[in-house]
Amino acid sequence: RIDPARLWESLMEMAKIGPGVAGGNNRQTLTDADAEGRALFRKWCEEAGLTMGVDSMGNMFATRPGEDAQALPVYMGSHLDTQPTGGKYDGVLGVLGGLEAIRTMNDLGIRTKHPIVVTNWTNEEGTRFAPAMLASGVFAGVHTQDWAYGREDAEGKSFGDEIKRIGWVGDEEVGARKMHAMFELHIEQGPILEAEGKEIGVVTHGQGLSWTQVTITGKDSHTGSTPMPMRKNAGLGMARVLQLVDEIAWSHAPHAVGAAGHVDVYPNSRNVIPGRVVFTVDFRSPELAVIKDMEERLKAGAREICDEMGLGVEFEKVGGFDPVTFDEGCVAAVRGAAERLGYSHMNIISGAGHDACWINRVAPTAMIMCPCVGGLSHNEAEEISPEWAAAGTDVLLHAVLETAEI
Amino acid sequence: RIDPARLWESLMEMAKIGPGVAGGNNRQTLTDADAEGRALFRKWCEEAGLTMGVDSMGNMFATRPGEDAQALPVYMGSHLDTQPTGGKYDGVLGVLGGLEAIRTMNDLGIRTKHPIVVTNWTNEEGTRFAPAMLASGVFAGVHTQDWAYGREDAEGKSFGDEIKRIGWVGDEEVGARKMHAMFELHIEQGPILEAEGKEIGVVTHGQGLSWTQVTITGKDSHTGSTPMPMRKNAGLGMARVLQLVDEIAWSHAPHAVGAAGHVDVYPNSRNVIPGRVVFTVDFRSPELAVIKDMEERLKAGAREICDEMGLGVEFEKVGGFDPVTFDEGCVAAVRGAAERLGYSHMNIISGAGHDACWINRVAPTAMIMCPCVGGLSHNEAEEISPEWAAAGTDVLLHAVLETAEI
Ligand SMILES: NC(=O)NCCC(=O)O
Ligand SMILES: NC(=O)NCCC(=O)O
Repeated sequence: RIDPARLWESLMEMAKIGPGVAGGNNRQTLTDADAEGRALFRKWCEEAGLTMGVDSMGNMFATRPGEDAQALPVYMGSHLDTQPTGGKYDGVLGVLGGLEAIRTMNDLGIRTKHPIVVTNWTNEEGTRFAPAMLASGVFAGVHTQDWAYGREDAEGKSFGDEIKRIGWVGDEEVGARKMHAMFELHIEQGPILEAEGKEIGVVTHGQGLSWTQVTITGKDSHTGSTPMPMRKNAGLGMARVLQLVDEIAWSHAPHAVGAAGHVDVYPNSRNVIPGRVVFTVDFRSPELAVIKDMEERLKAGAREICDEMGLGVEFEKVGGFDPVTFDEGCVAAVRGAAERLGYSHMNIISGAGHDACWINRVAPTAMIMCPCVGGLSHNEAEEISPEWAAAGTDVLLHAVLETAEI
Repeated sequence: RIDPARLWESLMEMAKIGPGVAGGNNRQTLTDADAEGRALFRKWCEEAGLTMGVDSMGNMFATRPGEDAQALPVYMGSHLDTQPTGGKYDGVLGVLGGLEAIRTMNDLGIRTKHPIVVTNWTNEEGTRFAPAMLASGVFAGVHTQDWAYGREDAEGKSFGDEIKRIGWVGDEEVGARKMHAMFELHIEQGPILEAEGKEIGVVTHGQGLSWTQVTITGKDSHTGSTPMPMRKNAGLGMARVLQLVDEIAWSHAPHAVGAAGHVDVYPNSRNVIPGRVVFTVDFRSPELAVIKDMEERLKAGAREICDEMGLGVEFEKVGGFDPVTFDEGCVAAVRGAAERLGYSHMNIISGAGHDACWINRVAPTAMIMCPCVGGLSHNEAEEISPEWAAAGTDVLLHAVLETAEI
């Protein structure tokens, strides 16, 4: 079993970097805080005797050698970047849980046939640079690195410039590494495990996602002196489309969700009717057909609303992935570990996207989930118990050891 | 008559300061560009032989002496600050039209009994620091200077700090000046004069305004893993309230307008359900009872919507003024000048707020309007013809000369 106190201490130590405003974290990808978090993780890996490799997307790979020099490594990891008002565990638990598993192997002098690698994937959150899971996506061949380097944040800074600025362009070619398997431990970010009283979620599937960026164009004009019939109020068009998004998602509930988290209104002045709004609609479902249906109804419905109001509308797909079925063998290793260790567990579908969803395309992959309080995530008040963290990390350790062959 | 070419040249010269992105201007109040615009105006005033006074709100007063040292001055002016994506004439025409009127008096060697003062009022637009017409409001005793100094922009910078930073805190006490009368020339910012084919609007009344800042509080959470029934989506609450705003305004049309130009969504991340939104509702009407009715229906309706959705809602009045009736004598002076000069004219109600609306509380005041193309304002594409500008400035000159007694 892993050392729960040591794990918790590392989690709290990492949480000091990029503090939020309400007890959580703001350690967005490729910021100075991200660089500081990376440096701390590298230091800890070196102290644990691991060899650090970094690829040109900034993905970090800390290797513990195996007995068989020919055997492909078993990977475990997640991400250290956070939301602007994010929690201390989303992603971080999977990286530092991996490190804790290695520390435990070191303590117990455990040797494995396959090498073991702990990974920190760059820009999982996708807040600063859309889409989410950007660097694991390049690793899995879903995006090209050139395209990823060109992604821009709200201030127009590019991913490529920012990764150079913080000094984390590594010399490894992205995706060159081959994997025997990969395991990602993550908090659930939803309410199911806690409600069902289970310590471990055995993740069998992942929901698919679609991000559609909608731009509605009207005409900026004076809020006071423009008569009502002459207005082309892009903000009002958005209001109607946001309601439509909600209706569409509910029409498929409980097999779908939908909302817009990102909204920019231009010129955003109290006495100017918005001439342009840009917002991103997030639709998810475990069923691909449902996602396609929601995307189509959004476009058709938004066009109808905007035509009627004399507004222009454009759509851009800025992120998405199909629903995922994880590897049977890896999933069985997770379930078997939970059973052997005596942790209560259940099968679960991941509501969020994860790096594991992309890696599953190039290597046998599975995920382990632990509960979080009230299902709350992407919120500074995100919380888990040290016991939950320890249970998840124990299962990670055992699933990895079985797969890496002691 | 004034010199149309000289007036136009000055307008184009000023428009070079704080250029916009689409041919207009971004010379928001108390920015470096504002300071540069002020310095140019001061230089021009000094070249015209005027004496510049500045008060502690940064209001500028350029005086041409009268023959009677005891007589109160006649004021004319408007504002040099612009919207973030504003036009070249909104406000600027009233200030530089006033300067052109003085230059014409100088050319013709005209002497008046009353001194004449050209004014630039600070922060008319209210975009950066709400409310609009802030410094004329302090001048008229509607707000205290302390309160005005404490107003903050979106970055948390205060009016008081910013006016010190740009070096435009003058030594005059705000509101200490007494006025014989005040005239403001302004573009209509609406479509009526152009549609009616009139060169001059004789402004008899001003619409009243109410700005209500609405804060809706939900709970930030993950867009993927939070089930639909558990969501507290503040963005969806806003969407419903924005539709209500539109319905309320239409219910009083054509005697009312309503919209929200300012919308901020937090934390504004694609995969976080908005936990908080802040937006400002702008309602206007020439009838006070209608404004009160709209305010009340907004609050009651938004409370109902938010209660139903489990969201919190708060309201703050961040700006407002009652409908205005301008001074009969000053209005007659404007109408008489238009008639004598042979310009087509009609009575009009101002749809926008103006510094004249506040000054009307402390001195006899009137406004002159000239058409603008397509009624478009608060847009970089705002346009007027040199002929319209000249006609308005001619009327300003003659109304002021009559009131200041040649
Ligand atoms: N786990 C997580 O929050 N990932 C971000 C991508 C997503 O929005 O699902
Ligand atoms: N004239 C003008 O645009 N003033 C700003 C105040 C308002 O919104 O009416």
